[in-house]
Amino acid sequence: MRPLYLPHHDGSPAYLETGRGADAPPHLEDHVTVRVRTQADDPVEAMWVRTTYDAEPVFHPMVAATVDEGSSSRWWSGTFPVHNPVTHYRFLLARGESQQWLTGAGLADHDLPDAFDFKVSAFPEAPDWARDGVVYQIFPDRFARSAAAAERPTPDWALPAAWDDPVLFELADPRTPLQLFGGDLDGVTDHLDHVAEVGADIVYTTPVFPGESNHRYNASSFDRVDPVLGGDEAYARLSAAAHERGWRIIGDLTTNHTGDTHEWFRTAISDPSSPERDYYCFRPDGSYECWMGFVTLPKVDHTSPALRSRMVEGPDSVVARWMRPPFALDGWRIDVANMTGRLGAVDVNHEVARAVRRTVTAERSDAWLIGEHNHDATGDVDGDGWHGTMNYSGFSWPLWSWLRDPDTVARAFGRPLPVPRRDGHAFVRAISQWQGMLGWRATSAGWNIVGSHDSARIRTLVGTASAHRVAAGLQFTLPGIPMIFAGDEIGLQGVTGEDSRRTMPWERRQDWDLETMSTYSSLSRVRREHTALRRGGLRWAHVEADAVAFLREHPDGDVLVTARRAAGPAIDGLPAGRLVLATEDTDPEVGSAHAGPVLTIHLVG
Amino acid sequence: MRPLYLPHHDGSPAYLETGRGADAPPHLEDHVTVRVRTQADDPVEAMWVRTTYDAEPVFHPMVAATVDEGSSSRWWSGTFPVHNPVTHYRFLLARGESQQWLTGAGLADHDLPDAFDFKVSAFPEAPDWARDGVVYQIFPDRFARSAAAAERPTPDWALPAAWDDPVLFELADPRTPLQLFGGDLDGVTDHLDHVAEVGADIVYTTPVFPGESNHRYNASSFDRVDPVLGGDEAYARLSAAAHERGWRIIGDLTTNHTGDTHEWFRTAISDPSSPERDYYCFRPDGSYECWMGFVTLPKVDHTSPALRSRMVEGPDSVVARWMRPPFALDGWRIDVANMTGRLGAVDVNHEVARAVRRTVTAERSDAWLIGEHNHDATGDVDGDGWHGTMNYSGFSWPLWSWLRDPDTVARAFGRPLPVPRRDGHAFVRAISQWQGMLGWRATSAGWNIVGSHDSARIRTLVGTASAHRVAAGLQFTLPGIPMIFAGDEIGLQGVTGEDSRRTMPWERRQDWDLETMSTYSSLSRVRREHTALRRGGLRWAHVEADAVAFLREHPDGDVLVTARRAAGPAIDGLPAGRLVLATEDTDPEVGSAHAGPVLTIHLVG
Repeated sequence: MRPLYLPHHDGSPAYLETGRGADAPPHLEDHVTVRVRTQADDPVEAMWVRTTYDAEPVFHPMVAATVDEGSSSRWWSGTFPVHNPVTHYRFLLARGESQQWLTGAGLADHDLPDAFDFKVSAFPEAPDWARDGVVYQIFPDRFARSAAAAERPTPDWALPAAWDDPVLFELADPRTPLQLFGGDLDGVTDHLDHVAEVGADIVYTTPVFPGESNHRYNASSFDRVDPVLGGDEAYARLSAAAHERGWRIIGDLTTNHTGDTHEWFRTAISDPSSPERDYYCFRPDGSYECWMGFVTLPKVDHTSPALRSRMVEGPDSVVARWMRPPFALDGWRIDVANMTGRLGAVDVNHEVARAVRRTVTAERSDAWLIGEHNHDATGDVDGDGWHGTMNYSGFSWPLWSWLRDPDTVARAFGRPLPVPRRDGHAFVRAISQWQGMLGWRATSAGWNIVGSHDSARIRTLVGTASAHRVAAGLQFTLPGIPMIFAGDEIGLQGVTGEDSRRTMPWERRQDWDLETMSTYSSLSRVRREHTALRRGGLRWAHVEADAVAFLREHPDGDVLVTARRAAGPAIDGLPAGRLVLATEDTDPEVGSAHAGPVLTIHLVG
Repeated sequence: MRPLYLPHHDGSPAYLETGRGADAPPHLEDHVTVRVRTQADDPVEAMWVRTTYDAEPVFHPMVAATVDEGSSSRWWSGTFPVHNPVTHYRFLLARGESQQWLTGAGLADHDLPDAFDFKVSAFPEAPDWARDGVVYQIFPDRFARSAAAAERPTPDWALPAAWDDPVLFELADPRTPLQLFGGDLDGVTDHLDHVAEVGADIVYTTPVFPGESNHRYNASSFDRVDPVLGGDEAYARLSAAAHERGWRIIGDLTTNHTGDTHEWFRTAISDPSSPERDYYCFRPDGSYECWMGFVTLPKVDHTSPALRSRMVEGPDSVVARWMRPPFALDGWRIDVANMTGRLGAVDVNHEVARAVRRTVTAERSDAWLIGEHNHDATGDVDGDGWHGTMNYSGFSWPLWSWLRDPDTVARAFGRPLPVPRRDGHAFVRAISQWQGMLGWRATSAGWNIVGSHDSARIRTLVGTASAHRVAAGLQFTLPGIPMIFAGDEIGLQGVTGEDSRRTMPWERRQDWDLETMSTYSSLSRVRREHTALRRGGLRWAHVEADAVAFLREHPDGDVLVTARRAAGPAIDGLPAGRLVLATEDTDPEVGSAHAGPVLTIHLVG
């Protein structure tokens, strides 16, 4: 067996011991032990861990353990104090005249900036239920209608649609946000058995506040649930039903803006002397700042203490109130987290994130907080604000680039060109660099998404069921928490985010891709059964254009994942193991040849 | 001629137009024009500049200019608004199915984090006199004795030394900081003709405050000049003499700590109810925080408003007072800038940097501010605090690694191993990545240092006069402002920082390396004569193990620099040019073969 991508370190329990128990963060001034695994015959003569201490570099010598009989690797270990809440570290390896750095982005033969340094955070980590869970995302208007749905009047703003109508999805079409299919919250509650079958245990619904659109990201109020969705009682029933199953439920709140129909904004407009006037960013001429130039989405002003306490800070805030009965949310997904509190020369984003975190934690010590960030969140996830993000940049886009069907009609999200098709090397380079920048903690507490209500559907992007299952497999096996956009599991299609909001075809089960749904179910089960898939490290084991393999290492046992995007020969040199899951019928041996896309999971070592 | 490292962009005037005049920063919401140069035959079909807008990515299309007759390159251009004080940008290049990013660290074929994005800053830039100047660093105790020096009594703490005594330089030797050679400020004034001969026009002295050591970084007071150096009058005379020549003078202030003999600290200790008690970081048990554990260097507390206004903020602060007559400093070099205001969970570093900047600017609109940062300053130089840093990380260490003599006895600074010897590829990779992270502005306003009072001497590190001249040549021709540690120009030696503080041998001119001094003089003159060397971009033109070449591009005319660390054959494919400087006798043709280390500067294009 050849040595696999050594020397290696990551922030997982096999490599970092805080002395506070597996996965538990250190306290300030704790000494942590870090370990580096090298090949047994690597002629490393000396190794140091370099930390920074109030921005000054400090070197701590490491010691090498003797190599166990028959082992192909050697462990080096060292300790250092966690002097700053986020302490950076990297390793210096000496071999004769050569000096090499090991950072979160791999090995470097030159002196490089700290951006990719490993990071250990003394802030509390994401709750166990979150890190061990599987999230199921529901867009309420499109998921399911309860019996009561048909009897509700259609609001004035809406264009009613039949459940099987085609979705209007061109952004330029003014009808797109108004098309109302009539899904509701009791519809969700009615179908929790389906969610259970997929294997998820965290229900995340996009906004339930009233808003004059089918997506409701333009809230008119934060004081109640949209009556079109069944109102407060229906949301309370959903929350209770989820909790009865031992599940959790997460809300969706936009902290960057409200709708222009919001009661705060209406007051601010009608009464410029009202306290609400200060909640928004009015210019001297009476115009106001808004999201990306859309005047229907006025931006709120987080430099206003009044706005902050009304919206995000303290027990009377919107953030706090919905976490108490009868809704009893377990956490929030924060919409447009990246732009929140940022406006030109003003940047109070981190302050707001910390305020939200204080508020949710005061309501529930095991609350979970995820920020929407379709861009580079690497400066925003130290650990005192959002636990993690919707990891588009560090997971979705690299995965999309590797797996895309060259002929897909799926459109890109956030860039002016189609998703490029790139090889396994580019995929791994991107995953590694983002993990290096985000840090182990934020990566593993973030959401692995193969798509969302804002993107094309993975099935449309990759073109085939087998490639789709490889994508799902990576979503469940790379560090991070899988978030499934409802409908992915049965192979729904969608060319853009709006198109992806097609209704769940409950009455057309013959159209479901049951094989793929079964794969999701198995992936959820296997992830739950094997600590390494939830808490293990990430060490690459093989990279070629059409195939990658990686180890999730954990003291409880290691797991090897192999993913192919196309037919390919056997991969030699991987450790032997026992197959626990394959997305297609395949030879159970590790790295065996296959005629098309496939992902396998083996227990090894 | 082959195409040279295209596509290319940097933040210099040939590539970035703010519409406010060459080099002038944009105002917030200005639209700037950015340009990318590609090969004329590069099949780029479309290009976008991607900026971030309150942390949200936005793409702006670019247009290609037609290729001028006979030109081998094509210009693309685009505009975007500077919405944030530091606005990030990068380029997306499309060629058929391929998509490539161009960032400050070069081209990438995968989606990478923003860390290396280009940056345009709307904060005011460093003053012209600074960017066009050459700095000469003087360690007063070792530079020159005036006639009056001999008559001054030796302070109690000091061990007097004769001018030609060997320097004690082992840190473990308690005598090292106490050995006093008796150089003084009138000694500096007496030798300004020497400084002029070297070509410098900015005098920077290490601290002149009283302190019980030869380096005076452990100040006892900020209210006066050490009498051992000649007192206030001598410093006023030096300042006046420098200004009479049209030069500038910069002071050196430690904002992180004082000496334990400082009058503030003595008061804080003797009277715990005094206001000064709050200036320091006392722990409940009466002990206190200090620099790297040295109890003689108590750390000041920048969360204390009283300390802040006494030391760094407002017209009565130390920072302000010394900028007024009779001392009339033109700026400060801030010692231990990296650790200032940082202590465990507290980090007010940027606030302090901004306060210092406000204070110096209020005293003198063209003040200059440089932070000591021997580590990664990339997060600390947005432009509202320090204009730049002593660029050890992004200049000195890469250069040292490329030029070091394998057999040197010079010791490393800040790491536990000798300086590694690396090839030209590693050198260029390091320079590029640091430039990418620091940004064009901070790189070009920072100090290019081949050594300082804190490091080994460049001559000792590289071993030969010809390699030393190559180092000096790079110091004057890569982006950044050359800072010469007094004595480098005549080939002084030093194994460590302390050893490098040898006295200037005014009476032993036969020991001076006059050829090297003449090279410094020529480099100063050539830098002053050619805008491109002061304000031009940086485009690499050739990289191999033992040789590098680069263009400094500027609308006023381009310059090509070629540097060899060893003998090598001719380099083909460089543009033709007229030789304006060579550090050795050499063939005047661009890229010609040479038998050893050499640096040449040609006017091209």
